[in-house]
Amino acid sequence: MLGLMQDRQLLVSGLLRHAESYHPDVEIISKTCEGAVVRSSYRQLGARVRRLARALEALGVKPGDRVATLAWNTHRHLELYFAVSGIGAVLHTVNPRLFPEQIDYIVNHGGAKCVFFDITFGDLVATQRAGFTEVETLVAMTDADHMGDMPDGALAYEDLLADQTDAPYDWPEFDERTASALCYTSGTTGNPKGVLYSHRSTLLHSFVVTQADGLQLSNADSTLLAVPLFHVNAWGVPYASAMVGAKLVLPGPQLDGKSLYDLARDEGCTFSLGVPTVWLGLFQHLDRDPAADAGALMLNRVVIGGSAAPRAIIQRFRDIGVTAIQAWGMSETGPVAAICTLLARQRDLPENEQVDIQTLQGRGIYGVELRVVDDEGNILPHDGKSAGDLQVRGPWVTSGYFRGEGGDVLDGDGWFSTGDVANINPDGFVRLTDRSKDVIKSGGEWISSIDLENAAMSHPAVEEAAVIGRPHPKWQERPMLIVVRKPGAEVTPEELTTHLEGLVAKWWLPDATEFVDELPHTATGKLQKMKLREQFADYQLPA
Amino acid sequence: MLGLMQDRQLLVSGLLRHAESYHPDVEIISKTCEGAVVRSSYRQLGARVRRLARALEALGVKPGDRVATLAWNTHRHLELYFAVSGIGAVLHTVNPRLFPEQIDYIVNHGGAKCVFFDITFGDLVATQRAGFTEVETLVAMTDADHMGDMPDGALAYEDLLADQTDAPYDWPEFDERTASALCYTSGTTGNPKGVLYSHRSTLLHSFVVTQADGLQLSNADSTLLAVPLFHVNAWGVPYASAMVGAKLVLPGPQLDGKSLYDLARDEGCTFSLGVPTVWLGLFQHLDRDPAADAGALMLNRVVIGGSAAPRAIIQRFRDIGVTAIQAWGMSETGPVAAICTLLARQRDLPENEQVDIQTLQGRGIYGVELRVVDDEGNILPHDGKSAGDLQVRGPWVTSGYFRGEGGDVLDGDGWFSTGDVANINPDGFVRLTDRSKDVIKSGGEWISSIDLENAAMSHPAVEEAAVIGRPHPKWQERPMLIVVRKPGAEVTPEELTTHLEGLVAKWWLPDATEFVDELPHTATGKLQKMKLREQFADYQLPA
Ligand SMILES: Nc1ncnc2c1ncn2[C@@H]1O[C@H](COP(=O)(O)OP(=O)(O)OP(=O)(O)O)[C@@H](O)[C@H]1O
Ligand SMILES: Nc1ncnc2c1ncn2[C@@H]1O[C@H](COP(=O)(O)OP(=O)(O)OP(=O)(O)O)[C@@H](O)[C@H]1O
Ligand SMILES: [Mg+2]
Ligand SMILES: [Mg+2]
Repeated sequence: MLGLMQDRQLLVSGLLRHAESYHPDVEIISKTCEGAVVRSSYRQLGARVRRLARALEALGVKPGDRVATLAWNTHRHLELYFAVSGIGAVLHTVNPRLFPEQIDYIVNHGGAKCVFFDITFGDLVATQRAGFTEVETLVAMTDADHMGDMPDGALAYEDLLADQTDAPYDWPEFDERTASALCYTSGTTGNPKGVLYSHRSTLLHSFVVTQADGLQLSNADSTLLAVPLFHVNAWGVPYASAMVGAKLVLPGPQLDGKSLYDLARDEGCTFSLGVPTVWLGLFQHLDRDPAADAGALMLNRVVIGGSAAPRAIIQRFRDIGVTAIQAWGMSETGPVAAICTLLARQRDLPENEQVDIQTLQGRGIYGVELRVVDDEGNILPHDGKSAGDLQVRGPWVTSGYFRGEGGDVLDGDGWFSTGDVANINPDGFVRLTDRSKDVIKSGGEWISSIDLENAAMSHPAVEEAAVIGRPHPKWQERPMLIVVRKPGAEVTPEELTTHLEGLVAKWWLPDATEFVDELPHTATGKLQKMKLREQFADYQLPA
Repeated sequence: MLGLMQDRQLLVSGLLRHAESYHPDVEIISKTCEGAVVRSSYRQLGARVRRLARALEALGVKPGDRVATLAWNTHRHLELYFAVSGIGAVLHTVNPRLFPEQIDYIVNHGGAKCVFFDITFGDLVATQRAGFTEVETLVAMTDADHMGDMPDGALAYEDLLADQTDAPYDWPEFDERTASALCYTSGTTGNPKGVLYSHRSTLLHSFVVTQADGLQLSNADSTLLAVPLFHVNAWGVPYASAMVGAKLVLPGPQLDGKSLYDLARDEGCTFSLGVPTVWLGLFQHLDRDPAADAGALMLNRVVIGGSAAPRAIIQRFRDIGVTAIQAWGMSETGPVAAICTLLARQRDLPENEQVDIQTLQGRGIYGVELRVVDDEGNILPHDGKSAGDLQVRGPWVTSGYFRGEGGDVLDGDGWFSTGDVANINPDGFVRLTDRSKDVIKSGGEWISSIDLENAAMSHPAVEEAAVIGRPHPKWQERPMLIVVRKPGAEVTPEELTTHLEGLVAKWWLPDATEFVDELPHTATGKLQKMKLREQFADYQLPA
């Protein structure tokens, strides 16, 4: 027997309608590629999105069509979020910092008909356009005044909007399982794969962002969005902000520590989200610029995800009165799938133990079922030790990649293998120990590269650390540590080994340590161990 | 084009599974009808619910069957919430404080096959059972020791559980639109009507209870559930508590001020929900018993709903450091449909203005669309003045009553008429002025009985007030005020009129004031104006 409740669908357009009705004056602040800071509001967002929806239709965009973006966090990119999905088309965000071949691949594999791009990427688009096989329309996200250097035939975004009216628009109603957005994985471990989100998955995920035990987003927040709109929907924050009428602060192309600090201070930001490297940048700025005063910030919490949050960053945030919330997820999980907020009974623990917990990837939240299985498929206990393949299931977890790439990715019971190796502790907190492709197997036992990296990064001279496995005649593989030192800091391999001795098992100690100026990262802030392994392919471990 | 996300359904069983895995040791405290306080946890809840699910199946309960309850807030009633819906049957909560004929009507109209009842209601069931036309099984929610006075043939709940195992149970997966619970309206304005909730509506509603801008329920809460499990799913708190692993404190049959105070103090309750009369009881106790110290409570917020929250109660909560959150809703809306949390920019207003806002019924939340229309169906502006029929739409709003009672209740665009008269202010806050059936029309203009009642209740001698319309030769109708004085307090009709003069328009002043010892309430704490109008049917207004 079915219930007798209304069959209203969860649609992205409903979020915008809600924000316009209930939070029209809440601000949306955007830095732009042209330089200006644009101050607007949900009222103006609504009006411009209606113009944009009409412009998209005038360009021939139909439900299901992919509309690609190559763009920073700006108000125009945000407008595309609501307009494209609102009319039933698919927002196809492309990471503009990938290699040109990867961009080509993603634009074409996604089958984009239009590409909207920031003026920063005018040259890129001019060079690549010949390779964009199905693209019919190019739109530069700027006004007529800035079209000088743009590729031939590109249209100016502001002209498109000016041609349309912002009169009321009847957002179409359709099945909430309709595709809303397409995003490719970071390509850290192989070719990027397309994840096709639905309106349903997006809306359910938004609830989690706004839960008191989730990311706690509320109308009281002013959010500095330091995660890119071009990847995994900026952790769902654009949608969740509209859901609760939270102020949104978009940093445009500048994500350096100084720019973020200034913006957070000027806009009274209470909340921010970013990958660890973004926070490293912020703290470098605080350390180096005497004019930068952490006390001038209104931040009360930040979310750290995408890579393991180093303990040092968590501690530094604590020292300036900010709660760091680690979150774990992936393109395939909406993205947020585990959130590291302390349980009520953990809030009275000594500070050190609280930080210990905060270094875990996060605890299970309603909506994402988590389990860890061993190589034989046995479900492992929540004992904080047994590590294996982390698997997930739920309404904002993918059922398969775009165009069937990778084949059938779910097991018979619907579980998706994340490719992350993890254990779960008795309190339900996930601890990621590695990616399965990065696992170091020494004498039949696993060494966690994430744990070793974290331990190395707790040394005051270490800015960043990576651990990779190197072949070893006796032990099969042994760990090698690669370190970037803090500017001006001195430390020897021996000193690092001594430091690690207190923190990890003896047989985990790296067989070699090398210093480099920089570690390779993806555009989403992840260590590219594939690259590191190539770089050190000929390296010989000392006997 | 559909997205490629998993088609996992939102089911009540998933909430329990989540709480068991992630919050096994969080406590569930229950007073019982037998007198004992039962301390258990989500782990034990899970185990007992599995036994109960098997017991229900053994009794022949099939998906879609209605399982009625006549019960207080106890752990056993909570178990039925999860077991009945979990196996795909329908939890049919019946308000045991209705008149016997109404109980008969609801049990039969709902088509219940089993009735689970608290021992308090053994006599009631013994008398009524002959009238329960389809009921095959009676279960007394107690153990064998307390079966002495129970109706013949009734089974003992604890025996049923003891016969089953708590081994893992494969909760069935089904369409989330499947009916989960059936609840009848309070019968304040006519015959109670059945609202058939779905798993989907229940789960979406749970998210709102747990949102930071919603009722903020989190793992840090210990909730004193002072709203009955027998009506509108206790405002969705049982489900939402499992969603986030919040401690639940169930007061059993005692809802008097002293019992609630003691329980809240002993269990460190941080959160509670109740109708205004429950809070009146609490403050009476605080006022009268010198041993009752508000400072010993850990409460940080309470939700007030079901009837208008009097300003005096909101202020009193403020004075003891508790935030009162008014909420508005109805059986037909899941029930929570508007929540009165202050907007960020309102939090710096002078206290008085903040309280003004808190007396409003609540602001629109994502998921429930609200609008006010006039008699001709024109949509009225959000101006805080234009009042009319409040209409709602959304995935946790009913599409029609059980068995088609009342016919087609939605308009062509899917809007449901609440029968409440309201305006919406520019900030999106709803202010209920009346029920359409209670509206007082004087000389062609409306007088808000809720406003007049609130104004009267702001007099220190007034415990409770009701306003009804009486026929008037010249003005068509004029308001009459009916007042319950605080114990020992003195006040004359003239003094009340003088008090009101400062608070409402002159032409609103009541034409008559009468004092009574008690006002008639429904079992859900609502003023029964139908009854009052009968009671004063022959009353003549002074010329
Ligand atoms: N808090 C975290 N701690 C450690 N690792 C994290 C955390 N959050 C995310 N990750 C890593 O990021 C991954 C998800 O990243 P994303 O989906 O952007 O692409 P990718 O996995 O890096 O790329 P690809 O799948 O193409 O190789 C996770 O599988 C996990 O390895
Ligand atoms: N915060 C509030 N302020 C004023 N009235 C409220 C509030 N919350 C709920 N109500 C009243 O309660 C009603 C919903 O109550 P419920 O569904 O329990 O049954 P009822 O409407 O009293 O009974 P019936 O529909 O059978 O006459 C709302 O329509 C509204 O009139
Ligand atoms: Mg990946
Ligand atoms: Mg009603």
